[in-house]
Amino acid sequence: MKVSVLGYGTVGVGVCEMIEAAEGLELGKVLVRPGKADKPFKVCSIEEICADESVDAVVEVMGGVEPAYSYLSAALRAGKHAVTSNKALVAARGPELAKLAAEKGVGFLFSAACGGAVPFLHNLALAAESDRILALGGILNGTTNFMLDSMQRSGMDYGDALRQAQALGYAEADPTADVSGLDALRKIMLACAVAYDKLPCEGFSLEGIESVTAADVKHFQAKGLVLRLLVRGGESGDGRIYAFVQPYLLAASSPEASVLQNFNMAKYRGENAGDILLIGQGAGRYPTASAVVRDLSDIAHGRRTMMKASCERVAADNSVCSCRYYVRLPAACADALPLAEKELDGALLRGVTEPLAVTDMHARVKALRESGAAVFFAAMED
Amino acid sequence: MKVSVLGYGTVGVGVCEMIEAAEGLELGKVLVRPGKADKPFKVCSIEEICADESVDAVVEVMGGVEPAYSYLSAALRAGKHAVTSNKALVAARGPELAKLAAEKGVGFLFSAACGGAVPFLHNLALAAESDRILALGGILNGTTNFMLDSMQRSGMDYGDALRQAQALGYAEADPTADVSGLDALRKIMLACAVAYDKLPCEGFSLEGIESVTAADVKHFQAKGLVLRLLVRGGESGDGRIYAFVQPYLLAASSPEASVLQNFNMAKYRGENAGDILLIGQGAGRYPTASAVVRDLSDIAHGRRTMMKASCERVAADNSVCSCRYYVRLPAACADALPLAEKELDGALLRGVTEPLAVTDMHARVKALRESGAAVFFAAMED
Repeated sequence: MKVSVLGYGTVGVGVCEMIEAAEGLELGKVLVRPGKADKPFKVCSIEEICADESVDAVVEVMGGVEPAYSYLSAALRAGKHAVTSNKALVAARGPELAKLAAEKGVGFLFSAACGGAVPFLHNLALAAESDRILALGGILNGTTNFMLDSMQRSGMDYGDALRQAQALGYAEADPTADVSGLDALRKIMLACAVAYDKLPCEGFSLEGIESVTAADVKHFQAKGLVLRLLVRGGESGDGRIYAFVQPYLLAASSPEASVLQNFNMAKYRGENAGDILLIGQGAGRYPTASAVVRDLSDIAHGRRTMMKASCERVAADNSVCSCRYYVRLPAACADALPLAEKELDGALLRGVTEPLAVTDMHARVKALRESGAAVFFAAMED
Repeated sequence: MKVSVLGYGTVGVGVCEMIEAAEGLELGKVLVRPGKADKPFKVCSIEEICADESVDAVVEVMGGVEPAYSYLSAALRAGKHAVTSNKALVAARGPELAKLAAEKGVGFLFSAACGGAVPFLHNLALAAESDRILALGGILNGTTNFMLDSMQRSGMDYGDALRQAQALGYAEADPTADVSGLDALRKIMLACAVAYDKLPCEGFSLEGIESVTAADVKHFQAKGLVLRLLVRGGESGDGRIYAFVQPYLLAASSPEASVLQNFNMAKYRGENAGDILLIGQGAGRYPTASAVVRDLSDIAHGRRTMMKASCERVAADNSVCSCRYYVRLPAACADALPLAEKELDGALLRGVTEPLAVTDMHARVKALRESGAAVFFAAMED
């Protein structure tokens, strides 16, 4: 199978190397930015790749929605299989690409967009064909896991943990998408689409790790708890999709707590299979490239679909899930939340709420923050 | 795809239910023991199934090498795809079945034979096509993990842990294959065949959990260590395959230590992908059935091969791996092992050896036991 690659950055270089080394795969032309075509195998035009009848598949590792969407659509229309690592693209335009692939009878796979080397979407797609997927979740952002693990293990504060992650290349110069939870949210959107044939596109509840302090972490440790940023997704009995990202406090003996540094852990529960946990490197040149090349092998074996052509966009409804929440807020704001337990910590109040719907808790905290209160919260794992 | 099932025991019933519920699959005739064909869908002859041209695939969940081997060979010769959960069969006759399947151009998959619901062999086969697999391992026997976890958490002794596992249906009346490590060994044999195209068939090093006492576990706990029965497999730089089973002492924060009760954890390290860990239920009606039905879906998508037709039998050579070993033995036998650390515990000696080749350590302990000494040992994770 001859494969052209769109993009020659960190992941693109890894994909090209792995294609050249893999039995049964051959590297075709590689699309680079205008002016960067300094070698014969590099071209600057998608048309050249689409017109090359010897190319069987196209890998997109450029990032961003455009021009990635236009380029990959063109490749699919030209009858090429498509593989991408681009979660922003699939979250925004996955259903259109899935329909186009189905019309053309070619493959469209995107394992590397969710969990890097962790074979999450691949296994989820296969499991969902014969088992009912009861729930999805896990740690799907390595940057924030690295930062939380550093804060937990060395007692460093949020700013130092972020600077350390940036120095090691685990966090971007602008870390917003990671620390806000948006990156993890896009991944659980894709997992819901694969498991339930429904891509949640609005109605999300999103809380990242920006509010956690070294003092908070010290409090959790004293209680034997570990903080992790988790995603959750699923389908309620009446067909409503939920999908949210928020910090969780977990027992130190939980599998999530054993996920260290920048590793990812994806989890699904099948009605028959039970809980399946998948752990590995969620990012990086070769881990991500390995997922891209696995998808190419999978297409060579005959697989075509990860997101069905019938996949529809829906609004998430996170009112179907409830949690008790650990919360730290100004003592003066105590009445804003129904607290089952509370203790004073100077001018701060630390406590645990009664069970609250995820939507309710996120709305209450938003209102508190708009009134100027600094609030941290994390769901308690029951 | 119409599927006939050979065997209607615990797993067989689950497979039949899942086939009937799955889109795209249809249940054909089911082979039962002579005299048990009390319903029209049950037959007692493999010939009847092989002669049925409407049957596309045959699932074997009878267990044992014969008549399973003769029956599955007959099905393959009749041009049916074959899926099995039978590790004894694949360990003994996998290469012959793989050759026959390749000759006939049909599928032969056996995910359920290794790790139950854990999608180990499936992902390993896919990864091995484009990545070099540097090492294999994990916890591949749920019975012994359940027993060790019980001993660790409640302080119970070996006999009580075994009786509890038997009462809960996690251990057989004759638990030898589980507690000796033989069951786990068969699974790492299959994983080596999938990853390296070489099925190790002799030269194994095998130590189970029969020698561990409640006093041993108390000692480990005082040092913050957790005991697990692990498999290891891999290929040395010069192409020698190693495959062994032995207890390991691990840090309480290790991923292996977080695998509780009767769960399994499979692990592989890809040169590009890095470490991938897969955790789930290693046995039970529906978890095992889910793996069988996943293989059927995989065949429907076009996959044919998990073990290649070129797979050759080799002797394992475990002299390529070395460990430091924790050991408990009669104080009078202290000179039988090169000890880097030691402490007296009444008439017993507890210590840690210098690094020793796996083969060397297993041979030394065998000699000690033959001379009547009671010895426990476990590798120390470095």
